[in-house]
Amino acid sequence: MAMKKFINNSENLVPELLEGYALAYPGHIKLTPSRLVVRARQKAQGKVGVITLGGSGHEPALSGFVGEGMLDISVPGEIFAAPGPPKCLEAIKLAERGAGVLFIVLNHSGDVLSANTTMDMAKKQKLNVKTVLTYEEVADTPRDKKPSERRGLVGCIPVYKIVGAAAEAGMSLDQCVAIAERAAQNMATQGVAMTSATHPSTGQAMFTLPDDEMEIGMGQHGEAGRGRMKIQTADRTAELMLNQLLDDLKVKAGEQLMVLLNGFGATTLMELFIIFRRVHQLCAEKKIKVVASRVGEFLTVQEMAGFQMNIMRLDDELLKLWNAPCDAPYWTKR
Amino acid sequence: MAMKKFINNSENLVPELLEGYALAYPGHIKLTPSRLVVRARQKAQGKVGVITLGGSGHEPALSGFVGEGMLDISVPGEIFAAPGPPKCLEAIKLAERGAGVLFIVLNHSGDVLSANTTMDMAKKQKLNVKTVLTYEEVADTPRDKKPSERRGLVGCIPVYKIVGAAAEAGMSLDQCVAIAERAAQNMATQGVAMTSATHPSTGQAMFTLPDDEMEIGMGQHGEAGRGRMKIQTADRTAELMLNQLLDDLKVKAGEQLMVLLNGFGATTLMELFIIFRRVHQLCAEKKIKVVASRVGEFLTVQEMAGFQMNIMRLDDELLKLWNAPCDAPYWTKR
Repeated sequence: MAMKKFINNSENLVPELLEGYALAYPGHIKLTPSRLVVRARQKAQGKVGVITLGGSGHEPALSGFVGEGMLDISVPGEIFAAPGPPKCLEAIKLAERGAGVLFIVLNHSGDVLSANTTMDMAKKQKLNVKTVLTYEEVADTPRDKKPSERRGLVGCIPVYKIVGAAAEAGMSLDQCVAIAERAAQNMATQGVAMTSATHPSTGQAMFTLPDDEMEIGMGQHGEAGRGRMKIQTADRTAELMLNQLLDDLKVKAGEQLMVLLNGFGATTLMELFIIFRRVHQLCAEKKIKVVASRVGEFLTVQEMAGFQMNIMRLDDELLKLWNAPCDAPYWTKR
Repeated sequence: MAMKKFINNSENLVPELLEGYALAYPGHIKLTPSRLVVRARQKAQGKVGVITLGGSGHEPALSGFVGEGMLDISVPGEIFAAPGPPKCLEAIKLAERGAGVLFIVLNHSGDVLSANTTMDMAKKQKLNVKTVLTYEEVADTPRDKKPSERRGLVGCIPVYKIVGAAAEAGMSLDQCVAIAERAAQNMATQGVAMTSATHPSTGQAMFTLPDDEMEIGMGQHGEAGRGRMKIQTADRTAELMLNQLLDDLKVKAGEQLMVLLNGFGATTLMELFIIFRRVHQLCAEKKIKVVASRVGEFLTVQEMAGFQMNIMRLDDELLKLWNAPCDAPYWTKR
């Protein structure tokens, strides 16, 4: 049976998609010969370089967020697979503009393995690079215990936005690290899946879910989550997820919150707006101030139905950085 | 069987989604008591008002494009259904800032019927409003013959962008009408569907397609198109569609083109970039200059897999208006 996707050859997916992306946004980004995604116009000397790595097949993530006020470079891997250390090392060298490089890594085993090897190589070569790990998935253990059990989900993207603005404003590498860690430690994400998706390389379903069930806490590629249940209403789903997030972060009345809803693929904006409505109502009831929000598709999983809810506790500095202008193909702020 | 959608009650879909949308983007838009979507900050006197109408269930269209440099007001209907004339008339009055109102109507029977009745009422009340119809679907008949046979598809959105910039720049109503008509007459759209979608009010499939087939030319709600065929590669699909569009518009070597790819829902950006790559290659071979492009989800059809390809022949004035800044929740240009 033919896959219901517009592709040519599963082996050329990544080079072809990156080539098409660069042709569609020539004013914003370009591809290097080794297929790093870099800004079309490089910044002058003196700015901290902000880079990231990650598998492909999650478009617009991660390369859709390369641009002024966000990432300098993204290092795309094959479908759902981390890129190798040599490409990451090349990106670090290319991003160096005399102020050091911040390397943002999502907590997934492949990404972390590649980043660790890269950092060993960078240390030997005396490169000025520091990593920040995002690991914001909700968990029952406190966040300072076993952070490795928390996966990095869509929250990397708000971190790109905030630390990208800090780097653009001329902050030092240490200041950028501090900002990125403050953002990373003040956020939490929970996902819910309604349907599986087709792996674009193999044509196989990534997992299965019964017709009347959904799974809360499913990982980015169908990894098992916190349990399946009968399909709930939008309002009930929003309540379940938001309460887990607020508990995990211990958000209190009077605090400022950013809320981002990330559709996986088949879930519509119509549905996400209905979810957002209930999130906002619940926050208002709890006297939590939603001061920033974004609803759309940021880190997708092919045509999976479902979404992630990401919240971040914002102090005034983080909010100011969130509101700073940026100009990436899939995140523009005036 | 439960619908695999995050909704509460199919009867409240539209009020709930609009309420959530307004809560998510309070800096950009707000809802009136009668549920028109208007800009959060109204323009001062002297600007032509640009408004449109259309069914819901196609988010971000049409209300996602209300904002500075694009629409002043959108009049959303129920799911896949045009809003009634009284709401359209209210929008015309609200958009009047002393320079008249441009009313953009997609060529669908329900939309046209509602717009025509509205215009009869507006005429009796001596309101200064003019309509522009978008009808850019490819067809075998010449475009000046039987334009009514061509449906209005995603092309309305580039028209909002261009005429929105013209209105923002202070052009008169007659100038805006001329710009919008020039844009509308110089564009063509073709769609292709791979899968059906679930009607969110009824829970039923909107149509059916065999597992190994796709349909070229399918309408926005599954209306029959120009024929079904076995699934083609991305490159072959791009060639088939682009050649129909270029023939229909009679695009010649040396001309400037805008290309927009609009995902219906389940089709990924990964696939759309692969399609865009081939479109760009083919244009380069034909010495047609792709000077503007956009790839994403603009006018969706729930979780349908497929996309529309929209092209517009751009003269220098249209290109300048395309590149002007704008700030709507789902289309921001710096």
